[in-house]
Amino acid sequence: MTEPRRRGRPVELDGARVSAVALDLFVEHGYDAVTMDDVARASGHSRRTVFRHFPTKSSLVWASADGFVDALRAQLAAVDPAVPAMDAIRQAYVRASAVPEQHWELARRRLRLIGANPALLADGVERFHGVDGIIAQAVVERQGVAPDSLDAAVVGGAVVLCAHNAAVWWAHHGEGQPGEAIDAALRRLNAGFAAV
Amino acid sequence: MTEPRRRGRPVELDGARVSAVALDLFVEHGYDAVTMDDVARASGHSRRTVFRHFPTKSSLVWASADGFVDALRAQLAAVDPAVPAMDAIRQAYVRASAVPEQHWELARRRLRLIGANPALLADGVERFHGVDGIIAQAVVERQGVAPDSLDAAVVGGAVVLCAHNAAVWWAHHGEGQPGEAIDAALRRLNAGFAAV
Repeated sequence: MTEPRRRGRPVELDGARVSAVALDLFVEHGYDAVTMDDVARASGHSRRTVFRHFPTKSSLVWASADGFVDALRAQLAAVDPAVPAMDAIRQAYVRASAVPEQHWELARRRLRLIGANPALLADGVERFHGVDGIIAQAVVERQGVAPDSLDAAVVGGAVVLCAHNAAVWWAHHGEGQPGEAIDAALRRLNAGFAAV
Repeated sequence: MTEPRRRGRPVELDGARVSAVALDLFVEHGYDAVTMDDVARASGHSRRTVFRHFPTKSSLVWASADGFVDALRAQLAAVDPAVPAMDAIRQAYVRASAVPEQHWELARRRLRLIGANPALLADGVERFHGVDGIIAQAVVERQGVAPDSLDAAVVGGAVVLCAHNAAVWWAHHGEGQPGEAIDAALRRLNAGFAAV
C-alpha cells in the first residue's frame, strides 16, 4: 500500500481519510503512543507526504475545524443587525458548528479524544484564538460595548470554551444534533450561571 | 557568571529570578525568538540546570501559577457551604489569584506576554485543566446540579477563560488589584452576557 517513490508533483492525499485512519489509531493505542510514522504506515503514505498536509499530530485531529473562523464570520454577518449580540453569536455559532448527520459518529469519536487529552484542547484553543476577536467585535458593534472594556475582553473565550465543552458533552451524553448542546450552553452563558 | 561544572548535588536555582530574567528576554526579543540557551546564558546557569527546573520554555512563564489548583481547592473549601455555588467560586477564585502588590508589575508583564502569544495561553489552558473539575464539583455539591449535566460540563472552562482574560485585561487597562477585574468578570459570567 505504500506509495511509490517519485519526483515532481506532490502526492495527492485524501485528508479526511488520513485523519480518520489516525483517529482509529489514537483511539486504539492512545494519542501519546501513536507517532506520525504509525499514521503514515497505516494510511499507506510516506512520512513526508503526511507531514506536508499535517504538520503536527494534533492537526490530524483538528483539521476538520480549519474553516470554522471564516464560517463563523460569515454566519454572524448573515444575522439581522437588529438581533442582540449574544443571540446573534449563539445563532451564528450553532450554524457554523453544524455537522452533517453522516459525520456525527466521526465527530463524536474525535471530540471524545479531545476531551480526554488536555494537550489537544490546548491546541484547539490556540487554533480558535481568532474567534475571540470576532465575538468581541459583534458585542461592540451590536451592543455598543466599548472595544477595550472588560466585557469585550472576556466574552470571546467564554463563548469558545462553553461551545467546545458542550460539543464534548454531546459526544458523551447527547442525543440528536450537536448543535442543540451548543445552543443550550450558549443560552446558559447568556442567561448567567448563577441560575443553574 | 556561569556556574562551575561539578558532580553530586544538583545546582540550586532561584526559580523566581530565572523566570524574571527569561521574561525580560521574551519581552525584549519576542517569545519565539528566545531559546533555553539564551535563558541559561543570561541567568548564569547551565542549560541542564535550567532544564531541570523548567522542562519547557512556557514553564518559565507559567511556573508562578503552579500552586493555583491547590489554592483554589482550599479557598473553595473555606467558603461557607450555604453560599451559592457561583458566588463561592467567584470569591474563591479571586482569593486564589491574589498577587502581592510588590509583584503586580511582574504579573502585568507576564500577562501581557501571555495575551500576545496564543501558544502560551494554550499551555495555560492545559495546566489549568484540573480547575474545571473543581468548579464542576462545587456546582454539583452546592447547587445540586447533576454531575453529568451540560451545565456541569461547561461551567469550569467558562470560569477559567473569563478569569484569565480578565487578568490579561487588567495587565493592559486595569488600575489597582487584579482581583477586581477577575471579580467583575465572574460577576458578569454569573449574571449572564445577555445583559452587557
